[in-house]
Amino acid sequence: MSREGFFTIISIGNALMTGRTLNSNSQWLCKRITDLGGSVRRIVCIGDHLQTIVETLREEMDRAPSAIVTTGGLGPTFDDMTLEAVARTLGVELQLHPDAERMVRRRYQMIFEGKEFQMTAERLKMATIPKGARPLENPVGTAPGVLIETKATAIICLPGVPDEMKAIFEGSVEPFIKGYIGDLRFAELNLEVFDIMESTLAPVIREAVSKIPQVYVKSHPLG
Amino acid sequence: MSREGFFTIISIGNALMTGRTLNSNSQWLCKRITDLGGSVRRIVCIGDHLQTIVETLREEMDRAPSAIVTTGGLGPTFDDMTLEAVARTLGVELQLHPDAERMVRRRYQMIFEGKEFQMTAERLKMATIPKGARPLENPVGTAPGVLIETKATAIICLPGVPDEMKAIFEGSVEPFIKGYIGDLRFAELNLEVFDIMESTLAPVIREAVSKIPQVYVKSHPLG
Repeated sequence: MSREGFFTIISIGNALMTGRTLNSNSQWLCKRITDLGGSVRRIVCIGDHLQTIVETLREEMDRAPSAIVTTGGLGPTFDDMTLEAVARTLGVELQLHPDAERMVRRRYQMIFEGKEFQMTAERLKMATIPKGARPLENPVGTAPGVLIETKATAIICLPGVPDEMKAIFEGSVEPFIKGYIGDLRFAELNLEVFDIMESTLAPVIREAVSKIPQVYVKSHPLG
Repeated sequence: MSREGFFTIISIGNALMTGRTLNSNSQWLCKRITDLGGSVRRIVCIGDHLQTIVETLREEMDRAPSAIVTTGGLGPTFDDMTLEAVARTLGVELQLHPDAERMVRRRYQMIFEGKEFQMTAERLKMATIPKGARPLENPVGTAPGVLIETKATAIICLPGVPDEMKAIFEGSVEPFIKGYIGDLRFAELNLEVFDIMESTLAPVIREAVSKIPQVYVKSHPLG
């Protein structure tokens, strides 16, 4: 991961493309990454289609961001294919990871409350991750997150279920990002101005921006 | 515009990248396009940066979707640069469009309630659109939408303010899309099943999908 702190989010899921699901995950991630001093430059949303995910990962890796954060496609069903796509993109095998298997097993032990259960193919799938990847503990769901460091870009795969995505990000991803970016902060100041139209304010802002180019000034019309 | 009905959305705005704004526009557009029988294949969100918008438009045009719908960047301020980016991408000039100027002027006449006002550079900017483009009436705001038909792909530029985006889509874009796609419909059926985990249901769904590959089946765990 480079120290520049430039991030790409890839949101994966057919439900995003039909409008069934609102992509609140990417807004939450943008806020958190911005607060950590990082900068999200691109968000790409695509459906559950293996070849599309592989192509998108390749294209976004070519831009060499510090990290790519994916959401969605880590679950047990046939159309959860994010990890297979990551493995293909990096040219590595998928393999059952002992720590990941332990994490998944522990969650099902809690769900079944001590009763017997099978580690079915679908459950083992969630512990089968690209070679060289590290599983990230999911404290509120079954599918672990996954972190893979490549030369330029770290690939961080999180579940699409918001509570699980947030818990893994806060528990495992934030410390990782802070370790690279260091102790940066995002500062923002809001000025409320009344009874003026955006088009009237525009030349004033343009002049301010030309005088202080380091500061980003943006008007948000409310009425 | 091709009849395949495959769409790309490009959401433009720094506020999306910092997480200040939730991208509810793209969900709304996905729902509407899906209902019209179209299919949104990609959503790309980027900041207000001219070169980034131009590169993204080029990359997405290379995929030859039926249409690219952009939201944001049509307003009067210095960082509203969608139309300049579209003009550069297509290699055409920006020019003041008489119908667009009439639309903008009419809105300011309503806002100023008959009092005198200036068509400032910032206000004329909203009527300055790529050569060959058609302005789309904005019944609830000042910046018109813009439609440009290229050989493979129609480019449709809508404002980022949700009410304006929706009004232009319903008034001008829906009829345009229907004219191409024809009278298709999206059909969806929800089955609620209780007391079963997604990982237990997964092999059943896999079998169903292999028997009826034309139908897309997806489980959405609720607990």
